[in-house]
Amino acid sequence: MKTYKVKDLLNSTKPIDDVIVKGWVRTFRNNQFIALNDGSILHNIQCVVDFENTPAETLKRITTGAAVAVKGNLAESQGAGQKYEVKVTELQILGDSDAEKFPMQPKKHSLEFLRENAHLRVRTNVFGAVMRVRSVLSFAIHQYFQERGFVYVNTPIITGSDAEGAGEMFRVTALPAQNPPLTEDGKVDYKQDFFGKETNLTVSGQLEGETFAMALGQIYTFGPTFRAENSNTSRHLAEFWMVEPEVAFNDLDANMDLAEDFIQYVIKYAVERCADDLKFLDQRLFDEEKSKPQAERSELGLLEKLNFVLENNFKRVSYTEAIDILKNSKPNKNKKFSYIIDEWGADLQSEHERYLVEKHFKCPVILFDYPAKIKAFYMRLNDDKKTVRAMDILFPGIGEIVGGSEREERLDVLQEKIAELGIDEKELWWYLDTRRFGTATHAGFGLGFERLVLFVTGMTNIRDVIPFPRTPQNAEF
Amino acid sequence: MKTYKVKDLLNSTKPIDDVIVKGWVRTFRNNQFIALNDGSILHNIQCVVDFENTPAETLKRITTGAAVAVKGNLAESQGAGQKYEVKVTELQILGDSDAEKFPMQPKKHSLEFLRENAHLRVRTNVFGAVMRVRSVLSFAIHQYFQERGFVYVNTPIITGSDAEGAGEMFRVTALPAQNPPLTEDGKVDYKQDFFGKETNLTVSGQLEGETFAMALGQIYTFGPTFRAENSNTSRHLAEFWMVEPEVAFNDLDANMDLAEDFIQYVIKYAVERCADDLKFLDQRLFDEEKSKPQAERSELGLLEKLNFVLENNFKRVSYTEAIDILKNSKPNKNKKFSYIIDEWGADLQSEHERYLVEKHFKCPVILFDYPAKIKAFYMRLNDDKKTVRAMDILFPGIGEIVGGSEREERLDVLQEKIAELGIDEKELWWYLDTRRFGTATHAGFGLGFERLVLFVTGMTNIRDVIPFPRTPQNAEF
Repeated sequence: MKTYKVKDLLNSTKPIDDVIVKGWVRTFRNNQFIALNDGSILHNIQCVVDFENTPAETLKRITTGAAVAVKGNLAESQGAGQKYEVKVTELQILGDSDAEKFPMQPKKHSLEFLRENAHLRVRTNVFGAVMRVRSVLSFAIHQYFQERGFVYVNTPIITGSDAEGAGEMFRVTALPAQNPPLTEDGKVDYKQDFFGKETNLTVSGQLEGETFAMALGQIYTFGPTFRAENSNTSRHLAEFWMVEPEVAFNDLDANMDLAEDFIQYVIKYAVERCADDLKFLDQRLFDEEKSKPQAERSELGLLEKLNFVLENNFKRVSYTEAIDILKNSKPNKNKKFSYIIDEWGADLQSEHERYLVEKHFKCPVILFDYPAKIKAFYMRLNDDKKTVRAMDILFPGIGEIVGGSEREERLDVLQEKIAELGIDEKELWWYLDTRRFGTATHAGFGLGFERLVLFVTGMTNIRDVIPFPRTPQNAEF
Repeated sequence: MKTYKVKDLLNSTKPIDDVIVKGWVRTFRNNQFIALNDGSILHNIQCVVDFENTPAETLKRITTGAAVAVKGNLAESQGAGQKYEVKVTELQILGDSDAEKFPMQPKKHSLEFLRENAHLRVRTNVFGAVMRVRSVLSFAIHQYFQERGFVYVNTPIITGSDAEGAGEMFRVTALPAQNPPLTEDGKVDYKQDFFGKETNLTVSGQLEGETFAMALGQIYTFGPTFRAENSNTSRHLAEFWMVEPEVAFNDLDANMDLAEDFIQYVIKYAVERCADDLKFLDQRLFDEEKSKPQAERSELGLLEKLNFVLENNFKRVSYTEAIDILKNSKPNKNKKFSYIIDEWGADLQSEHERYLVEKHFKCPVILFDYPAKIKAFYMRLNDDKKTVRAMDILFPGIGEIVGGSEREERLDVLQEKIAELGIDEKELWWYLDTRRFGTATHAGFGLGFERLVLFVTGMTNIRDVIPFPRTPQNAEF
């Protein structure tokens, strides 16, 4: 007898005798119909128990959450709702599940409750679907870059550099927390720490990635990054995964082309490979929004929205143009924005980004050529000396999904910028070496992976698209 | 004019007029021949400069390490060593490289020197090849699992659990290092830390991975893991990447089958896709070993060794059998082992593993059914109550490359084990839930990714197969 996955049985084109299938009971109706799920696919296979010839003791143990092994024959179903079902000839309880204690009851749970049970929530339809889509998106990312000759680079997670400049960092240490060794002048003596210096969790692999791009031509990273920022929002995590491609000889235009092509590729890949899961998530979003007032509902359904992104170019707009649009916008004039835009140079807030994307252009937007003052030190200064070759890609409902730039490849300009910021050049000796030896135009970007998953699955809280979210006051599991 | 990668030009089947190619000068001979590399492939393309019509000022700037853009025609080469070359019509220096200061001179550098220049070493043939092979192996891992319906799971890097039991951990904190807040009884008050509790860097994603396998059926992780162990060896890193598949309903035999099939698949994939790089690394190893005494040289060349692994099954041997073999072995009887094996229950040292693999069986070996006392708490106890369903895969020259087990799925047995070890059950409430609700046989393993890369590339120090190695006293870059 052969063991099958539920997916294989549901996709079968003919009856099969003598199948074994193992999984977890989702529901058990009428002492007869098991809805069995093994995670291989969203749907359950119906297993029909011969209840007259099954001991009452066994029937009692077929409860929601129990693990069972079923032997039987795959046959056409007389019932509505499924083409095939398994006529059970033998049933074995592998692991019981106390129906009164199992937290994942066959009913609707709040997302908050499910977050507290992140180790079990993946046994629900919603989280099974989200995690399968996440996995397929990850693979699409690797495939996109590998097919195009990019080299995957694992930049370090523990960094001795504190000049990455993207946010607050977590310290990594093996020193005793209490009474750490001190130097003669009474400071913590990091020389005695594991790495012989102060170390932190990386906020970006970009700087190291650039050194590899300047040798291998095209590289990408895809790994965890960290922010020790006390942001308790639905869009921020303390630990999240980031994709950072970097390409030698690319300028900002080529960088925008790459980012747009890349995003469309991975979304298309998910739409094609995760049809079942996305259809289910599309319906979920629709149901969720039913209870909302019309004005708060999405204009497009999930699948419509994904197809819209695939079929339309992203709108490319300079920061300066965007400021003009915002200055003259109704919410600005009517003082509906929390931050009123009155002059060039202002940093855009989430409300402004959303206005541009959702109200004005009604499509993904690439903003570029930002004021130097509000962007990172490594971005290439334009000839106007005021703006840098930065770009942000803004998505409906998500805001910034990509941030990137052409990098400052001129050693002297970069050194000047570093000095202005008061960063010690010695900290970045190796980064500056890429500008000392064979420097060239290059560009790259970072994509926040969870924001992409959020967009593709139609979930609204970023804690619901990563297996075990890390946020302020929360590192359970 | 179209821009080409060096790889495309070298693989061209016909001459092409009007090509642009950009890269870094490896060497410049006779004021005429540039060996140009862009990282897309091991080999350089020869670019022939019309030196009579090129300003002397420009010729002087064509130095090792300089970035250049070349326009010209791809034509058949009259010289030996290459089929095609570029007849340069226009040459632009993009970025200079001071020949006297550029550390990567066109000569043999020691691996130690190159480690100190990890940001530049990837511009050498050896490290270019290693990093391309590493990237292709990563992709092979994802492809293997995705093709088989496994779900990729990003288990958390920052963990609040200190019961992973695989080694010393790094602490992650946002508290001030100096004078952290204290509780009333004078201990560090982790309630005031970012996550409201003490947190560490993960040593394994297995426990979280199991919770997902018990919902999605087949999962794998592939991410960084950490050990704060002061091991300054050629086989240990403080930060390394690990692959951890976990499969519901698999027993130890199925686990061994999976591990063997998986390893053979990814090695085969690299052998097929990285022919150039591996041929080069094969020659490198041969050259390296020439200077060694015969007895210390590898019996097989690199490619021979890889093919040997593909063509032969791994030998499966119980721990008990292995102990018998070792007890009766010459080095044991002649007291050549540092640790003499005299009784059942001894933990095997690297010297014993190497004897079994390299001298006795002369092939990869899977050892299984280890004494419970020397293995982790979550491994399934055999009926003999002395051994557990653990397995280690041992590779020639590498030692342990995989460690895995069938997991203890019985709640009561697991609870007893946890109590014996003095672990607080409350710490693992969520892990135990998988045994409370629908428990079932399941199994998985961890593959140390850098050890695989070491094996496939024939490098001998693990610091040379990861972009920026983290080891005691070393977190540069």
